[in-house]
Amino acid sequence: MKAVRFSAFGQPLKVVEVVEQPDVALKPGEARVEVLATPINPSDILTLSGQYGQLPKLPAVPGNEGVGRVVEVQDSSAVKTGDVVFLPLGAGTWCTQLVAPADSLLRVPPGTDLRQAAMLFINPPTADLLLRDFVALQPGEWVIQNAANSAVGRSIITLAKQAGFKTLNVVRREELAPELTALGADAVLLDSDELPERVREVTGGAKVRLAIDAVGGESTRRLGDALARGGVVVNYGVMSGKGPRLSAAATIFKDITLRGFWLVSWMKKAPREEQGALFARLAKQVAEGTLHVPVEGTFPLESIQEALTRAMEGGRAGKVLLTPNGPL
Amino acid sequence: MKAVRFSAFGQPLKVVEVVEQPDVALKPGEARVEVLATPINPSDILTLSGQYGQLPKLPAVPGNEGVGRVVEVQDSSAVKTGDVVFLPLGAGTWCTQLVAPADSLLRVPPGTDLRQAAMLFINPPTADLLLRDFVALQPGEWVIQNAANSAVGRSIITLAKQAGFKTLNVVRREELAPELTALGADAVLLDSDELPERVREVTGGAKVRLAIDAVGGESTRRLGDALARGGVVVNYGVMSGKGPRLSAAATIFKDITLRGFWLVSWMKKAPREEQGALFARLAKQVAEGTLHVPVEGTFPLESIQEALTRAMEGGRAGKVLLTPNGPL
Repeated sequence: MKAVRFSAFGQPLKVVEVVEQPDVALKPGEARVEVLATPINPSDILTLSGQYGQLPKLPAVPGNEGVGRVVEVQDSSAVKTGDVVFLPLGAGTWCTQLVAPADSLLRVPPGTDLRQAAMLFINPPTADLLLRDFVALQPGEWVIQNAANSAVGRSIITLAKQAGFKTLNVVRREELAPELTALGADAVLLDSDELPERVREVTGGAKVRLAIDAVGGESTRRLGDALARGGVVVNYGVMSGKGPRLSAAATIFKDITLRGFWLVSWMKKAPREEQGALFARLAKQVAEGTLHVPVEGTFPLESIQEALTRAMEGGRAGKVLLTPNGPL
Repeated sequence: MKAVRFSAFGQPLKVVEVVEQPDVALKPGEARVEVLATPINPSDILTLSGQYGQLPKLPAVPGNEGVGRVVEVQDSSAVKTGDVVFLPLGAGTWCTQLVAPADSLLRVPPGTDLRQAAMLFINPPTADLLLRDFVALQPGEWVIQNAANSAVGRSIITLAKQAGFKTLNVVRREELAPELTALGADAVLLDSDELPERVREVTGGAKVRLAIDAVGGESTRRLGDALARGGVVVNYGVMSGKGPRLSAAATIFKDITLRGFWLVSWMKKAPREEQGALFARLAKQVAEGTLHVPVEGTFPLESIQEALTRAMEGGRAGKVLLTPNGPL
């Protein structure tokens, strides 16, 4: 089998290599899965560069989610050869094959777009929890987010629409407006110091109580300044490379709170049934096609350099996927 | 009577003037009070410069707290001539005399240091609420604060000591250490990027759950990075002129929350009895001398320029007070 591997943290393009690894024999209860599709997420880039909140022991195979096909099973009836399954979360998925406990493998619902299924476990739950876990929004209320064109941002637009929340979507490129509007965005706004004023205009002065921030730095501050008294800014990413900040007018005079969200923390503390219910609900939406994230392109493992380069560039049209066993 | 007055927001030294104003006749139930001592607080400076969270209609007399002596009462037995009283909060106190409803005037307990009593209503309650309203600290736990030498900072040291909390006090000038230690500080640390490491050393790795921030900018970030997972940074001032910020490692990976505190907001929502109980408890401490803030100097109204200049300078030894009816 082949795998992407890294033996040091650093500039992602410099630390990854594609290596041939020996196939290991299965133990009872294990299954061998060939990887069909696995995404490059922002958390993977941060892991490679050593900046993520939890880091693997090195050397390690990157990659945390995806879909695959069972090719061998040892003493288990949990899955059978040919089954298409979700890869276990955090399994080191950037490889042609991996071995996992057979009973940890959930089947992908028949008819699901496999590229979409490969992106189910990280971004959509993040979007859902950002919308629901911090402020108890009521139908008709507004929520504001930046990086609205990201995979999480798009899922937020879709999930908010379903829940009856109205979205204010902050972007850096005006040309994204038609696409996000078609997806269900109620308003698309450019990120600038006029943001609070624009928000007032668009909402007619309605109270905006929740802001979702993937950018950090001054972009966080502008979200905070656009919120109503007592509002909450939830920071889950730092695309600007800068930590999130607020104005003192927001914290002190308007009682704005800044919090953080990390899916890993949620998974450590949320009851297993709650997690299962969330994933099942989102899997159903992916199967039905109601939750959909554009794909920028798919790459074989051997093109990991090119794939990472695309994944780290701005202005992408969607997520970058690896398809280690050929195009999907 | 004489009063400091300002008719525009701007550089404090440029907008204030001392004016002669006509004495108004008392209405029934009113009392005339000569102002004995009234402090220049940071919130007064921000009000003059138009940066505070609520601003008066102009022209206005600045000043929000102090003590005075009743010199005339009209049809009321609530106070009598000669009584020494707390000035009503937010009354416009930088003047020789003011008129207030007689039943709004609380007597200063006999024997109280009047300069200390003049500083009772804003900084000590702020200190108390910062320590108690955000994290339910248990005796023996650590709390970290910056601007530890400020009036609020010193009150925090005293009140924390009484409650059995241990204080980590961040300052910019090393020479403050002996003084703050004498006041009850458990540790005095210099503000630098090594702060999180120094905190670990001093506390032996104990979990620090509450940080109190009067500085903003990078100083807030360093406090956040020094906290244990799930900790809270409460921002109540921006001495650096910069809004508070956190690292993404703090918000996302360590679940650190940033909140704001403003006494005015608390007073708008806290029940009147709760407010009364808090002020009574703190007044008792001021009367007993257990809560004490150094005074940098006292100035007559006519020296308002000099007084403001001192109040806006760093490196002060204490609070600047106006004594409009002569030295105390």
